[in-house]
Parts: sequence; C-alpha cells; structure tokens
Amino acid sequence: MKNRFLKAIFVIALIFAFFASCKPKNSSNAVSGDAASKVYVAPGKYDEFYNFVSGGFSGQMSVYGLPSGRMLKVIPVFSVDPESGWGFSEETKPMLNTSHGFIPWDDAHHPEMSQTNGEVDGRWVFINGNNTPRIARLDLKRFKTAEIIELPNSAGNHSSPFITENTEYVVAGTRFGVPGDYEDGDVPINTYKENYKAHISFVKVGKEGEMDIAFQLRLPAVNFDLSHAGKGKSHGWFFFSCYNSEQANTLLEVNASQKDKDFIMAVNWKKAEEYIKDGKGKKEKAKYAHNYWDEKTHSAVSEMKEDVLVLDAMELKDICYMIPCPKSPHGCDVDPSGEYIAGSGKLAALIPVFSYTKMLAAIDKKTYEGDYNGIPVLKYDAVLHGEVQKPGLGPLHTEFDGKGNAYTTMFVSSEIVKWDIKTLKVLDRVPTYYSVGHLMIPGGDSKKPFGKYMVAYNKITKDRYLPTGPELTQSAQLYDITGDKMQLLLDFPTIGEPHYAQAAPADLIRNNGQVKFYKIEENQHPYVTKGEKESKVVRNGNQVHVYMTSTRSHFAPDNIEGIRVGDEVYFHITNLEQDWDVPHGFSVKGAKTAELLIMPGETSTLKWIPEKVGTSVFYCTDFCSALHQEMQGYVRVSPKGSATPLTYSVGTNMPAVK
Amino acid sequence: MKNRFLKAIFVIALIFAFFASCKPKNSSNAVSGDAASKVYVAPGKYDEFYNFVSGGFSGQMSVYGLPSGRMLKVIPVFSVDPESGWGFSEETKPMLNTSHGFIPWDDAHHPEMSQTNGEVDGRWVFINGNNTPRIARLDLKRFKTAEIIELPNSAGNHSSPFITENTEYVVAGTRFGVPGDYEDGDVPINTYKENYKAHISFVKVGKEGEMDIAFQLRLPAVNFDLSHAGKGKSHGWFFFSCYNSEQANTLLEVNASQKDKDFIMAVNWKKAEEYIKDGKGKKEKAKYAHNYWDEKTHSAVSEMKEDVLVLDAMELKDICYMIPCPKSPHGCDVDPSGEYIAGSGKLAALIPVFSYTKMLAAIDKKTYEGDYNGIPVLKYDAVLHGEVQKPGLGPLHTEFDGKGNAYTTMFVSSEIVKWDIKTLKVLDRVPTYYSVGHLMIPGGDSKKPFGKYMVAYNKITKDRYLPTGPELTQSAQLYDITGDKMQLLLDFPTIGEPHYAQAAPADLIRNNGQVKFYKIEENQHPYVTKGEKESKVVRNGNQVHVYMTSTRSHFAPDNIEGIRVGDEVYFHITNLEQDWDVPHGFSVKGAKTAELLIMPGETSTLKWIPEKVGTSVFYCTDFCSALHQEMQGYVRVSPKGSATPLTYSVGTNMPAVK
Repeated sequence: MKNRFLKAIFVIALIFAFFASCKPKNSSNAVSGDAASKVYVAPGKYDEFYNFVSGGFSGQMSVYGLPSGRMLKVIPVFSVDPESGWGFSEETKPMLNTSHGFIPWDDAHHPEMSQTNGEVDGRWVFINGNNTPRIARLDLKRFKTAEIIELPNSAGNHSSPFITENTEYVVAGTRFGVPGDYEDGDVPINTYKENYKAHISFVKVGKEGEMDIAFQLRLPAVNFDLSHAGKGKSHGWFFFSCYNSEQANTLLEVNASQKDKDFIMAVNWKKAEEYIKDGKGKKEKAKYAHNYWDEKTHSAVSEMKEDVLVLDAMELKDICYMIPCPKSPHGCDVDPSGEYIAGSGKLAALIPVFSYTKMLAAIDKKTYEGDYNGIPVLKYDAVLHGEVQKPGLGPLHTEFDGKGNAYTTMFVSSEIVKWDIKTLKVLDRVPTYYSVGHLMIPGGDSKKPFGKYMVAYNKITKDRYLPTGPELTQSAQLYDITGDKMQLLLDFPTIGEPHYAQAAPADLIRNNGQVKFYKIEENQHPYVTKGEKESKVVRNGNQVHVYMTSTRSHFAPDNIEGIRVGDEVYFHITNLEQDWDVPHGFSVKGAKTAELLIMPGETSTLKWIPEKVGTSVFYCTDFCSALHQEMQGYVRVSPKGSATPLTYSVGTNMPAVK
Repeated sequence: MKNRFLKAIFVIALIFAFFASCKPKNSSNAVSGDAASKVYVAPGKYDEFYNFVSGGFSGQMSVYGLPSGRMLKVIPVFSVDPESGWGFSEETKPMLNTSHGFIPWDDAHHPEMSQTNGEVDGRWVFINGNNTPRIARLDLKRFKTAEIIELPNSAGNHSSPFITENTEYVVAGTRFGVPGDYEDGDVPINTYKENYKAHISFVKVGKEGEMDIAFQLRLPAVNFDLSHAGKGKSHGWFFFSCYNSEQANTLLEVNASQKDKDFIMAVNWKKAEEYIKDGKGKKEKAKYAHNYWDEKTHSAVSEMKEDVLVLDAMELKDICYMIPCPKSPHGCDVDPSGEYIAGSGKLAALIPVFSYTKMLAAIDKKTYEGDYNGIPVLKYDAVLHGEVQKPGLGPLHTEFDGKGNAYTTMFVSSEIVKWDIKTLKVLDRVPTYYSVGHLMIPGGDSKKPFGKYMVAYNKITKDRYLPTGPELTQSAQLYDITGDKMQLLLDFPTIGEPHYAQAAPADLIRNNGQVKFYKIEENQHPYVTKGEKESKVVRNGNQVHVYMTSTRSHFAPDNIEGIRVGDEVYFHITNLEQDWDVPHGFSVKGAKTAELLIMPGETSTLKWIPEKVGTSVFYCTDFCSALHQEMQGYVRVSPKGSATPLTYSVGTNMPAVK
C-alpha cells in the first residue's frame, strides 16, 4: 500500500514539475485594441449566438448571449428556484420527483443540443443531473424544462447526455460503480469488484422529444466520465471514456491512478439494438421517475417506472470494445468527419487520436491485447491515428472548428492548445485564467461547427475580478478563432459552475416559433379561471380553492373572508394578460413557500396553510404597471371552527358610508 | 361607487394620452462610438464600482461591476439557494426562521449601504424583505448575509431599509395596514379604517452592525412606500412617502387613487428618542425572529423576541407631520445638502420639491391645514420649494450627482429627466427601455455622490435582448453622466428584478479587509474536524455524526459502513484548505436536500436520512484539482436493526489481495 501511495505522489509531483516548464511564454493579459468593439453589443442590438451553459452545482442551465457574455436567463432544471416558484408551486413540484421522493437540487454538467443529420437543430437542450442520476430536456420554444427522466442502476450520471446524430438517443453512463438497484446492496464496500457494476443507459428520444430508457448495458464497475457519439461514417457507434479501471473503492486519487492506461470504450449501439430486437434484453425490476410538463394544463406529471431492459455487455462480446487510453481519460471527442476520436488523459502529457477506420479493422481482425472483465481490449497501436506530442499538461476536452483544427483544454497548465487533426501538429496555444475545464465552439461537437468563437470555462478565478469574500464567481473567457492565432476578447463571470456549454446561431432559435405568451383559450388547467366574473372561492372540507385572476392592476377576488386556521388554501391564479412580458407575481405573507411568477395565459397554484388568526395580505410581486403597488388583497383568517361565512369580492367590500 | 370607478379610469386615460404627447423626441437607440471602450473592462482588469442590486422577487442581492455590467456574485439573503446550500445546511437554516417558522423566500427591494457622516462607508449593505417583513444586513468583508431581523405589526415592508447618516438606524414602514400582531385580527376587512394600523420601525444598528428594534411608531393605516433620512442640517428627521390615504381595503388601483394629494410624512426621530427616554413608549407583546451568523462557529443562531416598544404618533402630536404631496407618491428623496426633499407622485405630472427650512418654519408657526387621523397636516405651499414642471409622466424616484443636479425616473413616459435642484429647470431627458423604476448614481442618496455613472433599472424588457420564451430577463441601462447630456452606454440584463441598487468605488470595499478564507485554528464549530487524523464517525442512538475533512483530493473518511435505514446522519465537513478560492462541494445521492459548498476553513453540515438499503455515494461537487473527479466515497446502508458494525476509513478498506 505504502509503495503505491508513494508512486502516485511521485507521478503527481512529476506532472507538476513538468507543468512549471511548459507554461506558455505568451501568458500575458495582452488584449489587442479591437477586442472592445468585437464584444460590444449596442443597446437594443442582439447577440450573434445563444450560449447554453450548465450551472454545474447550481443544478440549472443559464443562457448567455455571445459575444457580449451577457446572461439572458437562468432556466430552472433540477434545483428549486424560489424566484419563479419552480419546485414550490403545486404544478412544478412533480418535475423534481424521483424514486427517492422530492429532491430540491442536483449537479448539472453537460448541456447537449438536439441534432438533425449531425447538425444542431435548435429544438431542445438536454442536460444531465449528476448526483441523483437524471436527464432533463429543455424546450427552446419556451426556454423551459419540459421533461426529466431518472436513471436506475446508476450513481453519478456524468458521461451524459451526449447524443446521436439524429437525436435517436441520449446516453448516460454511471460514474460510480454501484450494486444494481434491485440487488442486495448491503454488501461490504471492499467487495466492490465482485458486487458493484457500471451501467450505461440509452435513452430513446421521440418525435416530440419524449424520453424513454430503451436499454441499459451492464458493464464492469469502472468510472465512466465523458462520451460522444460517432457521426457520419461512425454513426451507429458511441464512445465513452472511463477511469478507475483499477476498480478501487477508496482514496481514488491514489488508487485509481495506478495504471498507465485506462480506456475509451466503443459501443456498437446498432448491434445492441439488434440484440434487443432478438430478445436478448433482460427485463429487470427497477424504480425510476419519469416527469414531464403538460403545456395544456400548465402542470407537471410524474410517473414511476417499474422495469428496465438490460443487456449484459460482458456476456454479449461484440457490443463493446475497450481502446487503451493514457491516463484517466476525461474528454472523448469525435471530429466532424466522424473518423477521429481524441482521448484526453487528464494525467497524461500527450493526446492520443484514434481512427475509426483502424478500429473497425482491428475489431474485424480481432487485434486484441486481451480482455477486461469479458470486454475485448483492442491493441493501442492498432487503433491509433497518432499522438499530439507536448500539447501541455492535463488535457481535458477537445472541440473542433470545422476547418480541420482541434482545440484542447489543458487543466494543469491552464491553456488551450490548437492542433491540426490530420498532422497532429500544435499550431497555437493561449493561456487561460485559470485551470480551464471544458471549452465550447458553437456546434463544435457536431458535424457542422459554426466556428468564429471559442469559450473557455474555467475552474479557478482568484484575482480575475473584484473580490467578493471567500466565495468567488466562476468564469468564462471568450476567444476569437477566425484567424490563425486565437485572440482573447473577454472575461465574463458566470452563475454556478460553468461546467460545459453549447451554442447556436441566434436565428436558429429565435425564428423557430418562440412562444411569447400562452393562449388563455387553450388553458386546460383544472382550476383555470378564464375571466374575472368566474373568479370564486370554494370550500371542500378543510380544502379551500381560490379561483383567482390577475390583470393590471388587481386580483379578483381581493378580499376573502371565512378562511380558518389549519385550512389547506390553494390559490389558483390565472394571469389573464395576453401580451408578451406581462407576468404577474403572487405571494402571501408568512406562507412557507416561495412566490408564484405567472406567465400571461398561465395558471399557477400556491398552497398556504394559515397558522395564525388575523389578517394576511397578498400582493403582486412583479412590477406590472403604474398601479402595480396597488395590486394587493386581504385574507381574514378566523379560528378553527369559526362560523365566519366564506365570502369573496373585489371592489365591493367597502365600509358603509357614515 | 360607479362614479368613482369612472373618474379613476378617466384620470388614467388622461395620463396615458399625455404620455403619447410627451414621449421624448430623441428616443432612438443612438449610441456614440466611444461607448464600447467606455464599458469594456479588459480581461484581468477590475471594474471601477461595486454595484449592489436587489434581486427583487428573487429575494437575494446581486453584485455587479460597473461599467462592465458583469455580475460578480449573487449573495443569498432571504431565499434558499441550492447552489450554496443556503437554507439547506444545518448551519444556515436558522437564518430563514421567522415567527411563522422557516420561510424559503422573500421579495427584496432596496439595498442601502451603511454610512458614516452621511457618506457611504463600505461596511455593510442592508436590504428589506417585503413579503414577510424583515431586514437583512450583509457583511462586505465576507459578502455574506450576517443578520436578519423580523418586523412585527407589519405587512409589506417596502419603505425600508433606509438609513440615518451615521447608521444610527435603519427604518421599515409597513406598506399594508394590518391589525397589530397581538390584537384580535379576526375582524371584517371592511372595518379597515377602525381596526387596521400602520407601523414604522426604527431599528438601532450597533457598532458591529447588530440590529435591534428600538421602537415602533403607530400610525393611521396608510400605505408607506419609500423613505429617506434627513442629512446635514436635516439630520434627526426622516421622510416617508405614503399612498392610500383613502385607507381603501379593496380594488386599490381605483379606490386608493381618489385624492389629488397623499402625503410625505416627516418624522422627528430625535423627538421620538426623547419620548422613549421619558418612558412614553409602551412595551407591547410581539413575536419576531432575530437571526445572526456567528463567524466563530460558522453557524446561524435564531432567537425569538417577545416584545416591542411602541409610540403612538397619533397621540404624541409632535413626532410626525404630514406634507401634502400629489399623487400617490413613491420616491421621497433628500438632496445631498439635506435641504430639499423631492416627492415623486407616480400619478402626477410634476415633481414637488419641499424645503426643510420652510418645513421647520411651518411647524414652528403651526401652519397647518388640519390633521390626518391626529397627525398635523402642513400647508403644501408653506413647505414647497417649488415644482418641476412637465418633467414627464409617472415620476418615481430621484437621485443626485453632487453637482446640483437631480435625476428622476419616469415610469409611464419611460425616461429619465435631469433637472436643477435650485432652479427646478429641466436640463436633459433620455429614454429608457422600458418603464424605468428606480435609478442609481453611486452614492446618489448620500451626502457625497460619486457621480460618473447613472443606472436605470427597468421594469419591462420586451424586445431588448434575444427572446427567451414567455419569461424575459429584467434589465438595467448604464449612462455616462459626466457631461451636460446623459449618454447611454450599455444595456445589461440582470437576475431577478433589479428593484433598486447602491454602488461604491471598488477600492472602498476591496481594500477594507476582504476575507479570503477562514482560519482553521479559529473554527469553533461544535463538530469541527481540524485534521484528517481526527476524522471519525460517532453513533448516538439513531443519530450518526460524521466528522469529515476535505482536502485536494479526498474526503476522510471515504468508506463508511454500519449506517442503518432511518438513521439521522449528519455529515459535518470541514474544508481543511487554507487558500483563497478552494471551496469543496459535498452531496449525497438521493438526499432530500441541496449540496454543501464549503469555504476553506469552514465546517458545514448536511443531514441525510437514508431510506433504502444499499450503497450510496458522495462526491465533491466543486472542481478542485486535476484529481477532483476522484474525490468521492461510499456509504453502506444496512437495514434497520442490522448488526453491521460502524466502521470508517480512508485508503485502507481495500479488498484482500487474491
């Protein structure tokens, strides 16, 4: 044990020593004079690109404009959002349901846009929940989370939700080996190699985007990290990086860094489909939530699934193949042609680039060096296109500009390196501030990159912005990549952790049927109130349903009496406005919940259990008109068992004139 | 009733007609060529000003840099924040406690910086919670919420937390009349005029910033809206705008807009202090939470207060005076000299400016036009310095540049108007996009404005940015005010609702003892683990306390066995790092809570009640090193009553070598 520990420390020390010697020489802050005008978007003008950035540990997704770096919206996904009532309103609560019950948070790493023919199509963005494994789909007509599906037999859904070239599937590979959900997981942790397994989920995406787990592959308990689908000639294959091929269960920083090579696993998913068709899949018990948003009722629905189809890739020998890859690979990136697969070993000092054509030939000739827990291991040299030499230290992730160039982030040496895909020659390098993780080129992981900009998403900030105490913003850096040399244009701070991102030209999304408000006549919410005259308050036992409307600048009703302590009061507010950008907000003093932020034409529900006798108040929280401040109301709360009759009104409950 | 309704509609129609005719002629998007370079802050360079912007209905406060408009941080205040664990960790939960219990949200409107001698001093920012009335104090050494105090006898704490010139007090005036908390509030709502009252709280601020309600003034149930303290010559006075002097209880958009004039109320708080000293205050029962953050234990403490001292301003005739002000006044802004008080009647088409000197003379001579529910009403003309004629429509709020100029926002006509405080002449006007609420000049409500920039915080966005579905970002606009004419420089989107803001030169804060990390030797958290060797797991009945450490790149312990279904497991994580910007995150699969984000030297606690037999995982959520991905661990959960012994380890629980 001690020896292994010392060896690992020695390796790490070596890496850091190398780091010192390979720090780029041009690591200055120099920005040429035209950068200001290149990133400035004048008031009222539009950005060129939408940039969808994961919030990382915020659990949300944020939308930026490029090149300005301005944040246009945070879309709540996996975490509750008091601002919009996400996870607090009765309609949104089911979206955060899981097999563990309601969970108010997750860790969202990788946004991936839907594709058609390998090109970004602007319909949806998928994003993974890492902690309690899930995938969400966001609808880009409404900029709203439309669906969330949980993943059984998994923990740490990291290598997700990457996508096939016609959005046939999004995938999810477990980062942590775990006992299967329906096995007896009460086993000693140090029986990891026997009792723990990894699973990869292939989630089918329907025409309207609806998700369903088509099948899972059972695999040895390595830690899957990232993935990318083949494209063009390699369509039908999927590539996953994995580390911890040691299958260590403790102190992984040492014990999962023992081997010189881990793997990129190639999955022949067309073959897997055949096996499924041939009935080789085993239907196993499982429990996972499938939640979706119903636009007609403005409400989420949560269903619990009971089984999943599993293929054992260790038994069916020709679905998966292991390609050796130095060392603890992170990125696993397929170039626009589909021929080249770049592996980024985060503890390596070179970048291996594999050839799809050579891989097929090696599989054909069974050029194996052995097997790994039943999975054939191809010979490194047989699959290798070549290695990028001395790219820097700690390669993590590569994207492409569509002009034959690749751009790889170097975490340890804090730089981005541009290299030629075919010749593997390093063409340029720029420093990043500091410790870059992923990078993003618009369309840079598709068949048709849009190029122009590259954004580095950094992990460490330190002194880059005005200090804000111990906790600092995380940060992105925008580069112009139109010339031979990369040009730093802008540092822009982000919300949460900008883990990974996608981007698309603005017109692809803004001209694609953007919804500006919801039509009130199409509202099928069971508690909708389609006009002020229909507003009412109905008691049903200790449940009280308030059918309320909001318009500039009053609620109807705005005086309510006859509520009793301990009642379950449901305020169902229908925003009657039929114009863009006229939400109303709604809150109740002392309610143990957040506000509602109700879009025009929508109905939302706030649940309140009054605990005190007296008068409570409600008001509009979203400044809606010159008389917004007057948009308020009173609720009289009487003691339990009180005989105060239930009454409600607007404008008529005036004192008698004296 | 019908007549009053029609009259109100007629008034509103007139206003909108006038709006059409007074739209500024220069309402183009024209931005002169140097704007880009004026707002560009090159990578690695610092912004000139910190801009503290309320999140409005997000309940938080955000920190921007000016002139870049880049958001540097969101500081969680009144709302839970899954990203940082605010309101989820055991340590932070007490901060959101109230007399109603734990509340996960509020509506935060007005940040106000602490002052010394009437000048911004960079120590703290106060901000109000509107919905469940509270005031928070944020510490600018740590950029963290340090204290929250609840306000009894109140609802809708809007005119808050404005400040006296040596931070003697922050104030809070209720926006809604309510029955007192300990009165019988179960009264018909239409007895509003008899049974409902307004209260204004004077909250004493101690040397370390600690808050305590010194006294409340009981007042007729008008709706207090905004306020500002006197300064210089008018130190000792406080001014509050109020609307709904009609004391209407329903359909306020009509019924609270009946009178041509409402009031600005002048409060002689030095006089109130005398009455308190003389024992005129009545100690009344009350229940309100006082929560503060203990930096030593890295934990919040919540105490429940039981009484409050009340002065009845309707009985004690010489504390408060009403100054008539047209119409439904919002802003109530005192110029840097302390002589002039600008009232902004949101339904008015002029801006009355009152004179402090004339007010004193009028009080001295009892130049009253009568009384309002026992409060003397001064004659309008006797107090008036003059009126700004035709400033635009819907004046809301005024700040000052320290050069004799005032800048007033016009909500209805969407513009900002610059005028001369003494001559009352309009000097310039610029359009805003759209419907501006508050504006902000750095130091612009203090004795020493810093000038240079003015920011408009707008209420409506529409087409100003790339569309994002029905819900749009809210927005700010930055203007250069160094010349005679205001120059629009930049539109920047904001998070939440940018209701109001403050700003200070960067050096005032960044050179004022910024905390970069917490010293581990000063950590007095009861469950601190000061070194990895001290890490342990202790069972106490069904409570299990995990004393865990985090360092790059492992947790200790990282293998835990002997946990049982239904246990209350407390993970107390101490981040042992002692460097800036090395937080670690912590999350547990399936836990019904958010992550922890633990600053260096800090201890935070995640509570988890396992519900399933099997293996759970935890990992670091904040990318901390090249081996961050390896920073993880396993917990074995056995059935209730299981005899699996409690064990814990790091690096040693390896399988026996075969």
